[in-house]
Amino acid sequence: MKRVRPIQIAWKPNKQISIPVYRQIVQYICDKVANGEWPIGSRLPSQRALAESFSVNRSTISTAIDELTSYGIIAGKSGAGTQIVSNTWALMLPTKPSWKKLISSGSLQENNRRMQQINRLEFAPDIVRLGTGELDPRLFPQKMWTEVLQKMSVEITSLGYAEPLGIMELRQAIVEHMRQFGINVSTKNILITSGALQGLQLIASCMLKDGSTVFTEAPTYLKSLQMFQSAGLNLKGIPMDHDGLEYWQIEKQLHFDESSILYTIPTNQNPTGITMSNIRRKELMNFCIKNRLPIIEDGAYQELCFDDEIAVPLKAIDENGMVMYLGSASKTLAPGLRIGWVIASEPVIQRLGDAKMQMDYGASSLSQLVFAEFLKSGKYGQYLANLKQVLKKRRDNALATLGKYFEDIAVWDIPIGGFYIWLTFNEDVEVDGLFEKALDKGILLNPGDIYDFKHNRSLRLSFAYVTCEEF
Amino acid sequence: MKRVRPIQIAWKPNKQISIPVYRQIVQYICDKVANGEWPIGSRLPSQRALAESFSVNRSTISTAIDELTSYGIIAGKSGAGTQIVSNTWALMLPTKPSWKKLISSGSLQENNRRMQQINRLEFAPDIVRLGTGELDPRLFPQKMWTEVLQKMSVEITSLGYAEPLGIMELRQAIVEHMRQFGINVSTKNILITSGALQGLQLIASCMLKDGSTVFTEAPTYLKSLQMFQSAGLNLKGIPMDHDGLEYWQIEKQLHFDESSILYTIPTNQNPTGITMSNIRRKELMNFCIKNRLPIIEDGAYQELCFDDEIAVPLKAIDENGMVMYLGSASKTLAPGLRIGWVIASEPVIQRLGDAKMQMDYGASSLSQLVFAEFLKSGKYGQYLANLKQVLKKRRDNALATLGKYFEDIAVWDIPIGGFYIWLTFNEDVEVDGLFEKALDKGILLNPGDIYDFKHNRSLRLSFAYVTCEEF
Repeated sequence: MKRVRPIQIAWKPNKQISIPVYRQIVQYICDKVANGEWPIGSRLPSQRALAESFSVNRSTISTAIDELTSYGIIAGKSGAGTQIVSNTWALMLPTKPSWKKLISSGSLQENNRRMQQINRLEFAPDIVRLGTGELDPRLFPQKMWTEVLQKMSVEITSLGYAEPLGIMELRQAIVEHMRQFGINVSTKNILITSGALQGLQLIASCMLKDGSTVFTEAPTYLKSLQMFQSAGLNLKGIPMDHDGLEYWQIEKQLHFDESSILYTIPTNQNPTGITMSNIRRKELMNFCIKNRLPIIEDGAYQELCFDDEIAVPLKAIDENGMVMYLGSASKTLAPGLRIGWVIASEPVIQRLGDAKMQMDYGASSLSQLVFAEFLKSGKYGQYLANLKQVLKKRRDNALATLGKYFEDIAVWDIPIGGFYIWLTFNEDVEVDGLFEKALDKGILLNPGDIYDFKHNRSLRLSFAYVTCEEF
Repeated sequence: MKRVRPIQIAWKPNKQISIPVYRQIVQYICDKVANGEWPIGSRLPSQRALAESFSVNRSTISTAIDELTSYGIIAGKSGAGTQIVSNTWALMLPTKPSWKKLISSGSLQENNRRMQQINRLEFAPDIVRLGTGELDPRLFPQKMWTEVLQKMSVEITSLGYAEPLGIMELRQAIVEHMRQFGINVSTKNILITSGALQGLQLIASCMLKDGSTVFTEAPTYLKSLQMFQSAGLNLKGIPMDHDGLEYWQIEKQLHFDESSILYTIPTNQNPTGITMSNIRRKELMNFCIKNRLPIIEDGAYQELCFDDEIAVPLKAIDENGMVMYLGSASKTLAPGLRIGWVIASEPVIQRLGDAKMQMDYGASSLSQLVFAEFLKSGKYGQYLANLKQVLKKRRDNALATLGKYFEDIAVWDIPIGGFYIWLTFNEDVEVDGLFEKALDKGILLNPGDIYDFKHNRSLRLSFAYVTCEEF
């Protein structure tokens, strides 16, 4: 290795400006590495020496060093002190934090921390996931799966690039499938996506303007909507009553203008389990038509109504192209397939499809063919019918358990389907403390805070991941 | 239906400004619909009447009407004239064309038209695709596929959400797999993506600044790089000689600064088939280190060198984290799996993985498990060895055919692997005319123009899709 000159420092952070001192130090060191003054292999002075030359205390240096280490720009090589180890890609990390614009509401960062903890713990062994958004893997239709894959193992004779909107066979099967929900469209109205989340991503990047406001139920599943923020959109929560979104509150909002849109999960809403009444749906449609407010309808839990013909999708009563519908196989069959679909007018689908081709050329053909076979063979319908029975039983058991232990201290609605019961304590309880206590007993709870724009005293309970006994 | 008032127009386009008159009319009508003055069901005056009130000729009206119709904003209902049919999502289409920023080079739009024609024709029956970027479907390893899917049909017992970086089993298999190419990394350095294109997408949106310049070989596969333009980046082509990219030309470029990056396909380049010599690779690495120019190495054709140990990936000689490597199963096994991977330092992989979770939660778990099984079982290695033999034979045949018919009128290099031969005519031929003539005979050619920043007189020929006899 070439001999490198020892690093000389003749600079001090400015303590008068609003940028934290440690950030200034990180930036200073990045700049030195970026302009080549401090090449790879250069050794940084000791933390003590750095603290002296920058006139800051050791803990500030330590924070800056930690950050630079986390970016992979410096590393402490044993015996050799701290060295510059990278000077290109790593340097781009601290200079582009804007990729993940943070929500304006200050509480979301906290929420994110809790959310990350939950995400990590969900992979821990022996934990009872009482609030998770995933279906119990024990409900996986193993026999059907085997049959479908055996069929695919001989039927698939090559796997080329798929058509831009998704494999025709699957789009046809989805057209048929959606008919039972009153949605009558053609294959040209359907775009297959890698899960419903990608549908949202495409809508945000192709259709919505920077700075637009997205109205949504409060509480809602904010994690899916983070992407809206990354796309420069504002989220605004609208309260719900037992019949769903209180649409009349939208008009009162400051940011309600012609670039606004509405994102709603009208059926078996996540996290509250509320299903919008059919009367409310009609009123909402009229309100949106009157105000030219376009709707994204997330139908992730639409197919999980325990009794048929209860919830009519907004898309089924949409005569004017007000509604884009998002469907998904993730909550019913398997999230790992990564299959979702968008239903919209042909020109809109064309635009989204073009953008999709720029992003990843489309969802896995294998996943598409497998899901198409599930639909076409009638297996998916059978499976769904059985799944709804199991979930209904689990819901009834969960309600009975709650009635026994929580009747005096909390309230909840009876969900007509889906995964969730939204439990709200009568008095202000320390939901955070409850989370920790439950964790000690091996139970993972999802506190309501992570779904809301503000503090609340609720829990999202799921009866979909655990058996009756476990609940 | 409610009675709607007939539409009144008291406005004229401004012929003095640079916005085309038909666009002004489109915008005017969109505004009227958006602000509710022209509700759904309103009937537009006849084209003749519109032409009169706008003081423009009929063809301008006709262009505007066509555009509005293509967006789904108006439709000609039989007997009822042209009506407003949609007022929400459709209205967003004309107002957000920026999702697909066009390349600065004026010729690309033309290229795009030709490209779209080729994309369409590739699905036509009985056409011989002599330039396509896809592997011959007849080379699909049917027997192995059946075995792998049979295994998966019983081994997979549920398909939940995968880990953010991709299924560990697959990342481990890729770590092993990459070792034979001299790339020694751990599972923390690998992110599974939905094809290599998504890797580029993630890099563009997480790492690169707006307005940065991406240097790349000229010619190159521009279609994959469109996404760079959509992300606000500039593309700049750098010439090649027989040893690959002439890196020394980068320094002379106007837009070469510390935010620039290099995108290269050093091995079996698309479309020229050129493989960068190992000496050039070392020189390039030194140049990039000296100039702190980070590299994206596209290894799509890396695994298709017919003789082993010829091309050492840049990533294998990368000691300083200069290189992000993109791998893919699309050119070797099956594009429809949509499996690619990025290799980079741990902090960079973490950042890309976080962004991926915001976009689509990761590639299909089913595809991931299938590809992992191909790798782990050794089937992929066997398949690849056989595939390379077949492709080598096809290349030799193609070279012999070219030698026989084109020796006096064109030149080409001998590719050491991959799919392509880049044929350049000695004299300026009408490549467009040639394209049309070949098409008449049922042969689909890929003219060189669609890969270049400027006009050229070359063809990309592929020996990977057609048998020796067909060629």
